[in-house]
Amino acid sequence: MGSNRGDLNLKLLGNKETEYLFEYNPDVLEVFDNKHPDTDYFVKFNCPEFTSLCPITSQPDFATIYISYVPDQKLVESKSLKLYLFSFRNHGDFHENCIVTIMKDLIKAMDPKYIEVWGKFLPRGGISIDPYVNYGKKGTKWEKIAEERLAKHDLYPETVDNR
Amino acid sequence: MGSNRGDLNLKLLGNKETEYLFEYNPDVLEVFDNKHPDTDYFVKFNCPEFTSLCPITSQPDFATIYISYVPDQKLVESKSLKLYLFSFRNHGDFHENCIVTIMKDLIKAMDPKYIEVWGKFLPRGGISIDPYVNYGKKGTKWEKIAEERLAKHDLYPETVDNR
Amino acid sequence: MGSNRGDLNLKLLGNKETEYLFEYNPDVLEVFDNKHPDTDYFVKFNCPEFTSLCPITSQPDFATIYISYVPDQKLVESKSLKLYLFSFRNHGDFHENCIVTIMKDLIKAMDPKYIEVWGKFLPRGGISIDPYVNYGKKGTKWEKIAEERLAKHDLYPETVDNR
Amino acid sequence: MGSNRGDLNLKLLGNKETEYLFEYNPDVLEVFDNKHPDTDYFVKFNCPEFTSLCPITSQPDFATIYISYVPDQKLVESKSLKLYLFSFRNHGDFHENCIVTIMKDLIKAMDPKYIEVWGKFLPRGGISIDPYVNYGKKGTKWEKIAEERLAKHDLYPETVDNR
Amino acid sequence: MGSNRGDLNLKLLGNKETEYLFEYNPDVLEVFDNKHPDTDYFVKFNCPEFTSLCPITSQPDFATIYISYVPDQKLVESKSLKLYLFSFRNHGDFHENCIVTIMKDLIKAMDPKYIEVWGKFLPRGGISIDPYVNYGKKGTKWEKIAEERLAKHDLYPETVDNR
Amino acid sequence: MGSNRGDLNLKLLGNKETEYLFEYNPDVLEVFDNKHPDTDYFVKFNCPEFTSLCPITSQPDFATIYISYVPDQKLVESKSLKLYLFSFRNHGDFHENCIVTIMKDLIKAMDPKYIEVWGKFLPRGGISIDPYVNYGKKGTKWEKIAEERLAKHDLYPETVDNR
Amino acid sequence: MGSNRGDLNLKLLGNKETEYLFEYNPDVLEVFDNKHPDTDYFVKFNCPEFTSLCPITSQPDFATIYISYVPDQKLVESKSLKLYLFSFRNHGDFHENCIVTIMKDLIKAMDPKYIEVWGKFLPRGGISIDPYVNYGKKGTKWEKIAEERLAKHDLYPETVDNR
Amino acid sequence: MGSNRGDLNLKLLGNKETEYLFEYNPDVLEVFDNKHPDTDYFVKFNCPEFTSLCPITSQPDFATIYISYVPDQKLVESKSLKLYLFSFRNHGDFHENCIVTIMKDLIKAMDPKYIEVWGKFLPRGGISIDPYVNYGKKGTKWEKIAEERLAKHDLYPETVDNR
Amino acid sequence: MGSNRGDLNLKLLGNKETEYLFEYNPDVLEVFDNKHPDTDYFVKFNCPEFTSLCPITSQPDFATIYISYVPDQKLVESKSLKLYLFSFRNHGDFHENCIVTIMKDLIKAMDPKYIEVWGKFLPRGGISIDPYVNYGKKGTKWEKIAEERLAKHDLYPETVDNR
Amino acid sequence: MGSNRGDLNLKLLGNKETEYLFEYNPDVLEVFDNKHPDTDYFVKFNCPEFTSLCPITSQPDFATIYISYVPDQKLVESKSLKLYLFSFRNHGDFHENCIVTIMKDLIKAMDPKYIEVWGKFLPRGGISIDPYVNYGKKGTKWEKIAEERLAKHDLYPETVDNR
Ligand SMILES: [Ca+2]
Ligand SMILES: [Ca+2]
Ligand SMILES: [Ca+2]
Ligand SMILES: [Ca+2]
Ligand SMILES: [Ca+2]
Ligand SMILES: [Ca+2]
Ligand SMILES: [Ca+2]
Ligand SMILES: [Ca+2]
Ligand SMILES: [Ca+2]
Ligand SMILES: [Ca+2]
Ligand SMILES: [Ca+2]
Ligand SMILES: [Ca+2]
Ligand SMILES: [Ca+2]
Ligand SMILES: [Ca+2]
Ligand SMILES: [Ca+2]
Ligand SMILES: [Ca+2]
Repeated sequence: MGSNRGDLNLKLLGNKETEYLFEYNPDVLEVFDNKHPDTDYFVKFNCPEFTSLCPITSQPDFATIYISYVPDQKLVESKSLKLYLFSFRNHGDFHENCIVTIMKDLIKAMDPKYIEVWGKFLPRGGISIDPYVNYGKKGTKWEKIAEERLAKHDLYPETVDNR
Repeated sequence: MGSNRGDLNLKLLGNKETEYLFEYNPDVLEVFDNKHPDTDYFVKFNCPEFTSLCPITSQPDFATIYISYVPDQKLVESKSLKLYLFSFRNHGDFHENCIVTIMKDLIKAMDPKYIEVWGKFLPRGGISIDPYVNYGKKGTKWEKIAEERLAKHDLYPETVDNR
Repeated sequence: MGSNRGDLNLKLLGNKETEYLFEYNPDVLEVFDNKHPDTDYFVKFNCPEFTSLCPITSQPDFATIYISYVPDQKLVESKSLKLYLFSFRNHGDFHENCIVTIMKDLIKAMDPKYIEVWGKFLPRGGISIDPYVNYGKKGTKWEKIAEERLAKHDLYPETVDNR
Repeated sequence: MGSNRGDLNLKLLGNKETEYLFEYNPDVLEVFDNKHPDTDYFVKFNCPEFTSLCPITSQPDFATIYISYVPDQKLVESKSLKLYLFSFRNHGDFHENCIVTIMKDLIKAMDPKYIEVWGKFLPRGGISIDPYVNYGKKGTKWEKIAEERLAKHDLYPETVDNR
Repeated sequence: MGSNRGDLNLKLLGNKETEYLFEYNPDVLEVFDNKHPDTDYFVKFNCPEFTSLCPITSQPDFATIYISYVPDQKLVESKSLKLYLFSFRNHGDFHENCIVTIMKDLIKAMDPKYIEVWGKFLPRGGISIDPYVNYGKKGTKWEKIAEERLAKHDLYPETVDNR
Repeated sequence: MGSNRGDLNLKLLGNKETEYLFEYNPDVLEVFDNKHPDTDYFVKFNCPEFTSLCPITSQPDFATIYISYVPDQKLVESKSLKLYLFSFRNHGDFHENCIVTIMKDLIKAMDPKYIEVWGKFLPRGGISIDPYVNYGKKGTKWEKIAEERLAKHDLYPETVDNR
Repeated sequence: MGSNRGDLNLKLLGNKETEYLFEYNPDVLEVFDNKHPDTDYFVKFNCPEFTSLCPITSQPDFATIYISYVPDQKLVESKSLKLYLFSFRNHGDFHENCIVTIMKDLIKAMDPKYIEVWGKFLPRGGISIDPYVNYGKKGTKWEKIAEERLAKHDLYPETVDNR
Repeated sequence: MGSNRGDLNLKLLGNKETEYLFEYNPDVLEVFDNKHPDTDYFVKFNCPEFTSLCPITSQPDFATIYISYVPDQKLVESKSLKLYLFSFRNHGDFHENCIVTIMKDLIKAMDPKYIEVWGKFLPRGGISIDPYVNYGKKGTKWEKIAEERLAKHDLYPETVDNR
Repeated sequence: MGSNRGDLNLKLLGNKETEYLFEYNPDVLEVFDNKHPDTDYFVKFNCPEFTSLCPITSQPDFATIYISYVPDQKLVESKSLKLYLFSFRNHGDFHENCIVTIMKDLIKAMDPKYIEVWGKFLPRGGISIDPYVNYGKKGTKWEKIAEERLAKHDLYPETVDNR
Repeated sequence: MGSNRGDLNLKLLGNKETEYLFEYNPDVLEVFDNKHPDTDYFVKFNCPEFTSLCPITSQPDFATIYISYVPDQKLVESKSLKLYLFSFRNHGDFHENCIVTIMKDLIKAMDPKYIEVWGKFLPRGGISIDPYVNYGKKGTKWEKIAEERLAKHDLYPETVDNR
């Protein structure tokens, strides 16, 4: 049991000269093989260090992004996910679009059974926006599960008081 | 990818001379096109700065309003939503009616697949009132989902102790 | 839009000489017309200032009462609800009975589609008691919803440590 | 409305010379009549003062016990429940067994429609144990509800960090 | 009622010379007989002291592990579970694999009706990873329940801000 | 070491027929001898079940009262303190006066070296009031300490948001 | 002991026709006699319902105001304080000036021994502002205490993350 | 650097046959040598598992005890402290006396430069009691420090609401 | 009373074409006149949206910055402070240096009586760093107060567990 | 302004082949020059990932370590601090000694004006231990400040309930 570096084929891990690109770039996403493809399980990433620019005013926006997925053959490597999220740093788009874009890029990179992305942005003008999107692979039971999870989404909104 | 101002057709964004109207006015609501109409997703607004007047005593009331919806062809622009909520500032109505009114105005403005509005008001006379209303578009699966979400509403009331 | 006093027919609102009666009295409950009878919505009252007397020892008991209902033709007026709850101040009954009594009196007063009442009492002898009861109008879908909500009640009990 | 002592037939209430027995004794449990047998409702006891002995090392164990039930003809009297829980003070058994024992004794004492018992024990060796058991009366709808509540048990484990 | 040491046949309990092995070793897991095999109930372990090594960098990783299961004929003894978790201390593997490995080892050791394991790891590079896996015994109702619990997993992600 | 009932001379303890008086009555306060008069120490009472009547409107007011003192020759017995606080139940006075009255009655009853009383009332009209008063015995070092504690009082007001 | 309406000479209390003025007006402040002028004590008001307008943009600002004072001969009546704070509703000024203005108006109205005012405003542009000012009456010990309290102000800033 | 068992001379550590005595017994306290007598430092014990009996009613009482001290030549061994606190399990005394007794026994056992003991008991009759006592060795600077710490004790009482 | 735009002489306020510069630039700081130079008061800014780059790895760092000062003749305008903090976005420096730089720039811009800056950074490598620096104007009492505040800094470090 | 790698002379930063040593080794600590030696300021490290072995039982212990210091000519580099804390992973010593050792090693490495170290360990046997030690450089004002900070240490112990 256990894994070591020899098992993997990752371009970025341990790569000291990593260039941090601060323009949107989905190509930095890397994946590795799922060692337990026989088992359905969830992997969740908590990402409280997301920042992008407002497309209208060019001011920085800040959010925590929650990404949760059920892998099929591939998992996304977490350092490459960090680089991918960094790439929004000087990129301008609406909150709603950022979240859908992140989901679609991750679907393209690892073709998961299920994935959901929830962004919780800091307020602008006294109002904060929290978009949520999900997806289940067509033709699998996860297609139906995605619909059900969307239908049950956020029945208990968290308390927000802007402090 | 990404959006810029040229993509949009918004009257108020960046409009320096914005007049803040403090009388109820649903006409300030503005919408813009949904770039992902193929994808069902939720957008939630957290609005902790709502204030209106009590219709009986004319005293100010205070609330946090949570608005959550699934867009169809249109999204509501957040700055116009702020102006709309400001327009209740010197307007008198019962808590219960304010919440239903907000939902109906947003349905009229953007015709969403689904929407819900939850108000959590500060106490008057030692009691606080939290109205909740929702809606699913007739003839879509969201009609049924709205019923189910209402049936499951708030099984876990938050702890409130007036401090 | 908006409501004003002329629309209402309430005996107590603004009545300066209000007598506070501290003996159980369901007659103080007053109702007013639902302006949105076409729309199903929830109204919740958070009432952290409930106190009654223990029927065995005559000691004061303290509770927070959560009342949540779906109106039919009538809503209960919140100041009259306050007076009603005050009327338990020098009244003695078991926690469990107080909660069922409150629900039955509110059903009688406004004949709602659905109602639930949850009391969270302060501890006596190191143990606290939290009764919960609900009701759905016979012959409506809310009869079934009441059963389902009871079956799913409080799957996540709040942490209580008596401090 | 209201209850007074004359309505009840309880041995322990107000019994000044109460002996506190610190050896396991289910006989101290007392019940009284349900005044609302027509109405299904939940009663929950929060009991943060439970302590027993470890059957291996004889060291004291500490727990909060949550007991929730739907009465049929009888309710358990809360002071007798306190005495019953005291009777574990010098009694040795595994966490898992204590919880099942408490449930079975309460079923025997009041024959409820439904009951569940959840224990949350303080850590031993850096690990804490939280057993949960439930029961629905055979031949009633509560048999099925018990199965469903077990199947949905604790999807959101509370955060525990031993501080 | 009650248990004492004579009832059990455990190698490690009270064994003063216990060697703590800090290399992965599932053989330290010990089980004992379920005294209530007629009753389905949950046992949850909260384990906030888990640490392993990163397979890429050999740096220590830290997590809280939540293990919840429904026993069949056997329960896992908690001190042996502690030793088992200690055995990851100098072992290197990915977060996702550790969690699946822990579940599979516990299935092998006690053949439960149902089990789930949720790891919540501290952040690396600003992102934290929380894997979750579950299992229901084939041919029992728990196979279906496992699928349903996975489908409903974590609809309310906990707030994480890395402080 | 240890105390038993024979050491004490208390009228109320264990007195089953205790009458609960709900009109202001400082005579119910009872004291007992300090067994450690050589040692200065603090005793704090946390009293979250205080309720009185508003002198203007006769509506119930609710507060948590914190009482902290350094005994001289006498300690106040906690059950008699409970009865004393009950006696405000149907008594009308301003928040500020209630707190000063409680302190003065306790000084008269036990002549402590030092005492302070802090009331935290639930809001009326959107504002809550928290009076604080203290006292040090004239001619002792506690006179000066009382002044210093008042001068440093509440540099960090607790967050209050009326929910 | 106790107070009743006859003891007081307040214009607004119980005055049903109260006009709520939403333009800055310090004249609404009313005071009443301190019944304990021999005793130094603190009175704190928690006011979470403050709103004014930004002098630059005319947008509404929201704050919680904490007012704490030591009375001399007069106390400020809480309902009149509420009216006074309402009078900022349509008034425009900087956060910093509002807080100093409130303090100066209260000094003028009741000439206290000591007073402090702390405003905690909701964020604008991602930054929130919390002004604090205090005052001790010249020629009393409270002049020095005010300096010391200012020198020790807020050594532990509350955590603010704009959610 | 580092310590091992050979450095110590402790009777109880690793002593498998440890008898747990549940009657008050200060003799179980054991001490070991301070390896850093040149350095003043604090050691704090957090003890949330304290239970004793009420001397009036023989009912169990529960508390968290906080013990903080500055060692001179000796430190108290934590397992022996646990046994000592266990010895109050079936012992009856007032809350106030338990705390002073614990401090005096620890002074006798290890003659520290400074010590303080704070008990926070669960409520009885709606009121909870938190005694605090401290001590500084005569003829050292800690005598004065003890006085100062007592004078500044608990300026910010924790919020207690009995839930 | 009250302020309006005509009273001010600010370059940036309401300036629609504001350019957001993401390279370090202290020149964007703007000040305005203190209307209450006779009164010492604190102004605190809570800034949870600070981000800079690590000077070693060029990775983004995130922090909340707390700035608290006592104005002399000038106050810093909050929108210009926002722009100033934005200017660290693509700037690389150590946490410790950023905080000292921010303080020195603000001293240069407004010459306050007193100022302090506290940064709380998100963890890197499992450790987070929180620098704190302060300053009192030479020749004023604030020079001494700054020393005293530094000597008393952070006696109660906040709990940090990286989640 | 700003720093870059050329300014520094650090052996470990960016050193890909870093060996993680899990035996106590103070030699891994590295320091760099203080760029602001004219300014007294605090640097705090929050280290929630500390683990060592119990010297008696060889079981793992877990703690959060808080280190706070005022630099003189040198600052400790945070990655080297991480390696130093890792070196306790397989090292056995008492909680109290670990904390004093960490402080003494940091004094030797960077000769600070002031330093304090506070460890908060997870419970063993139901009790947790939190040692605290500090130091001020002889012959500077920080010698006195260290004494004062020790005398005022932890007047408000955090609530600990082992959950
Ligand atoms: Ca709040
Ligand atoms: Ca908040
Ligand atoms: Ca917050
Ligand atoms: Ca609150
Ligand atoms: Ca707790
Ligand atoms: Ca509480
Ligand atoms: Ca924690
Ligand atoms: Ca957090
Ligand atoms: Ca934290
Ligand atoms: Ca609250
Ligand atoms: Ca947060
Ligand atoms: Ca509370
Ligand atoms: Ca609690
Ligand atoms: Ca945390
Ligand atoms: Ca805790
Ligand atoms: Ca905890």
